[in-house]
Amino acid sequence: MKRQVKARLPRGFRDIFSDNYKLRLQMINTIREVYESYGFIPIETPAVEFVDVLGKFLPDSDQPDGGVFAFRVDDRWLALRYDLTAPLSRIVAMYKDLPKPLRRYQVGPVWRLEKPAPGRYREFYQFDIDIIGTDSMAADAEMCMILCDSLEALGFEPGTYIIKASNRKILNGIIDMSMQALSENEYIKQVLSWMAAKSKSKPSAELKKTEITPAIKLEHKLDIMRCIDKLDRVGLEGIQQLLEKGRKDETGDFKSGCFLSQKQIKPILEFLKIDCSNREKFLNSVSDLITEEHGKEGLDELKEMDEILSTAGYNDNRVIFDTQVVRGLTYYTGPVYEAFLTVKTTDEKGKSVQFGSVAGGGRYDDLIQRFTGQKIPATGTSIGIDRLLVAYQNIKKNELTSSTPVLVTVMDRPRLTDYQKMAQELRQAGISAELYLGKKGIGAQIKYADQRQIPVAVIAGEDEFNKGEVTLKDLRLGTRLSGEIADRDKWRKDQPAQIQVPRDKLVEGVKEILGRYR
Amino acid sequence: MKRQVKARLPRGFRDIFSDNYKLRLQMINTIREVYESYGFIPIETPAVEFVDVLGKFLPDSDQPDGGVFAFRVDDRWLALRYDLTAPLSRIVAMYKDLPKPLRRYQVGPVWRLEKPAPGRYREFYQFDIDIIGTDSMAADAEMCMILCDSLEALGFEPGTYIIKASNRKILNGIIDMSMQALSENEYIKQVLSWMAAKSKSKPSAELKKTEITPAIKLEHKLDIMRCIDKLDRVGLEGIQQLLEKGRKDETGDFKSGCFLSQKQIKPILEFLKIDCSNREKFLNSVSDLITEEHGKEGLDELKEMDEILSTAGYNDNRVIFDTQVVRGLTYYTGPVYEAFLTVKTTDEKGKSVQFGSVAGGGRYDDLIQRFTGQKIPATGTSIGIDRLLVAYQNIKKNELTSSTPVLVTVMDRPRLTDYQKMAQELRQAGISAELYLGKKGIGAQIKYADQRQIPVAVIAGEDEFNKGEVTLKDLRLGTRLSGEIADRDKWRKDQPAQIQVPRDKLVEGVKEILGRYR
Repeated sequence: MKRQVKARLPRGFRDIFSDNYKLRLQMINTIREVYESYGFIPIETPAVEFVDVLGKFLPDSDQPDGGVFAFRVDDRWLALRYDLTAPLSRIVAMYKDLPKPLRRYQVGPVWRLEKPAPGRYREFYQFDIDIIGTDSMAADAEMCMILCDSLEALGFEPGTYIIKASNRKILNGIIDMSMQALSENEYIKQVLSWMAAKSKSKPSAELKKTEITPAIKLEHKLDIMRCIDKLDRVGLEGIQQLLEKGRKDETGDFKSGCFLSQKQIKPILEFLKIDCSNREKFLNSVSDLITEEHGKEGLDELKEMDEILSTAGYNDNRVIFDTQVVRGLTYYTGPVYEAFLTVKTTDEKGKSVQFGSVAGGGRYDDLIQRFTGQKIPATGTSIGIDRLLVAYQNIKKNELTSSTPVLVTVMDRPRLTDYQKMAQELRQAGISAELYLGKKGIGAQIKYADQRQIPVAVIAGEDEFNKGEVTLKDLRLGTRLSGEIADRDKWRKDQPAQIQVPRDKLVEGVKEILGRYR
Repeated sequence: MKRQVKARLPRGFRDIFSDNYKLRLQMINTIREVYESYGFIPIETPAVEFVDVLGKFLPDSDQPDGGVFAFRVDDRWLALRYDLTAPLSRIVAMYKDLPKPLRRYQVGPVWRLEKPAPGRYREFYQFDIDIIGTDSMAADAEMCMILCDSLEALGFEPGTYIIKASNRKILNGIIDMSMQALSENEYIKQVLSWMAAKSKSKPSAELKKTEITPAIKLEHKLDIMRCIDKLDRVGLEGIQQLLEKGRKDETGDFKSGCFLSQKQIKPILEFLKIDCSNREKFLNSVSDLITEEHGKEGLDELKEMDEILSTAGYNDNRVIFDTQVVRGLTYYTGPVYEAFLTVKTTDEKGKSVQFGSVAGGGRYDDLIQRFTGQKIPATGTSIGIDRLLVAYQNIKKNELTSSTPVLVTVMDRPRLTDYQKMAQELRQAGISAELYLGKKGIGAQIKYADQRQIPVAVIAGEDEFNKGEVTLKDLRLGTRLSGEIADRDKWRKDQPAQIQVPRDKLVEGVKEILGRYR
């Protein structure tokens, strides 16, 4: 006897069943149509890439194995892709004669070795578009427009979603302004304190100014950005704490801060308090606040996007600018954007929740340089298909999604080929039909049909065969009767639960019953 | 300066570009429709499973790491799925209340750590259907019918493909008959010689009868089957050698044989020589040959399938029975079937080749038992999407597959928002349209459009804006003119390569040009 194996799934993975699968397919096809209408073409990369080709750009750097599923093959380190942007960068560098600007879309699973949590899986679907080879703000404006068009094509009306955009250059400018408030020595002391707190040791007296490399400076700046990115979770007060020494969260965990002074925190908080209710207000307020050159450049870029969006009719009810939008990934260099569902939905526990972010992206002008040595401007958006699917289910829940087949039951096993023929006739008439292939009796067969939400059962026993008839059973009638019908008796008479039709009117009879629910 | 990374792909992996991607999608959707018309529902499993859940059932057991991509996570061994059947078995064991018979389909990539070769990749697509929970031969007959329907829906007519079926029980019966020709002692000696040749050592005198475990006996039998499976590659003479001491192939590699005697080989070769040109002949010949009980059972099963297939109109021009069909996988227990394209196509080097196998499957009544301890009958089919795609491309190569968009060119950069509006108008009229987002001049823009096989370019410079017009350029006209048109001058006059239309007739004008190629 062989040892029995336990049927189980690794943590963070899951199976997708029929209804969810079909809804997801519908969703992907709808988005694909929008993407293609803007001229995007598909390119599919494999699941597996070289580790160094993928690079390390995940928002949280403190994951085991850098957050990727890595393994060694043929003496080389490979890994499952953690997003679709890194493989695209490889594509652009490898196939130099692809027409530019390149507009490509890709949809598929990505894998991240993160701690699984409710609703957070280690395998999830992304649906990306990117435009490579142009630094035109028209490309970034188009990304926002496409997000609007995609969400609306899925049935999310303006008012139930909002696209929020910002620009990394502005945020960089604000942080640079904040840092300029310090002398060189103060700055070094600050970075040393920050490093010590991070590594939970005392500030090292020996560490010299020269040892604060550009990489360390960048990391400090990114840490400030990551704090700001937490605004919606921790509020302004939380941000204040995180920018100072640190903050204890609800679970009691302490996260060390950035060690900024009050003087430094001020412009950041002022920026975060800007009124973002419409694009004009945002642009004016930022204009008043920003003095640093890069920041001004970012502001001009947003102004350009605003103009294009307004001309195309994408107004404040669809796209706004918002200081809160940071985007965790380290490689963004310009405009960043994020799509939020503002509609309330119910979560798995039936609790009403605001939906939140379902897509995001931004400009990453330096990423492809890793391969080519040359700067190749690029901007891209990723829709989180699994999250969006949950919201889409809420919209579509009253639609009958599954095109379940008709069941041809088997009363009289020796006549199997006759039943087979009935199923085939139905299929040839364009009606999905399935022959019951189990061994159970007619009662169990009807139960099976109910379980599968099958609308019609075709029944034929000796009686029917002798009379040259078939019996058709309307399996949805019960559900319907318990519902909204007022005059039940009359309805029941007009819509009998079972009808007999001549054998050669099988297709017409089935169509009649299916027609009751169209 | 950071070190530059070389953009490259691991061996055995590849990127799929637009046309191939779209054709594959079309193919998958067509097959899906057929599957759904028979009542199959989708279930999607993750790429990653526990290694012990996947089990080891690959045809060639002598692969590194057993042929799978395995890795350790959370102190447990995981692997990428190598087919879609092992995950389905887990599904059936895990979710006990799924309605039975369960008809499920799944499409997606699988991964095998095999030696890459031309046309053999380490990531490839399979499209599977399985019926779980019935031992009815109607299920196996249906599998053959669905393969026919799928191939025909894709455009492969009867005569360009053939489904070949057989039954493992018959093959087992033949081999058992062959083994019965031996005394117990002769048999042990034979198995010892076979083992020694496999491990390249001398037959061990010490190895006792009792040490020849059932597992070893089974392996010997499977080795005989694997030899027979090579018939189409090595011919009857090659099979003869492989069943004896072994065979040297074209490259000079020696493969050790099964050490059968001439007396034993005789019934096997007789079986392989059976006339398989139609089902009746096959059934009669096998009936004459087979004396062993299991073999007779297999024959009866094929007879049942034959009856169902004939009633449903699937005759010898679509489904035949064939002794050659073995199927490499170890877990098959009953009917096995395989779909072949008989149409000649040209390979990558332009050479004419017969296409060969594109799908296959069989009954595997014991596989799920690994989890449940209980026997759950099952039968299933897998279509090799990538191989089939190559043949499908040959059929569809003259169809215009890509729905490429219209290009709105940018002559006058400050008028970007005007161009944007044109693109948007076209999209709103249901025409895919793309705004040129690069920085190059109009000549380069037209070249870009040509590269992308874009049919129409919209052009508007100062002249056009002053006159309230747009110029539309028919980019396919050149290609068309060099083709089949007889009276070129007249055609050129009727179908001018460039037309001016009023700005508010943009959509109509574009539609007119697109209409030329419908």
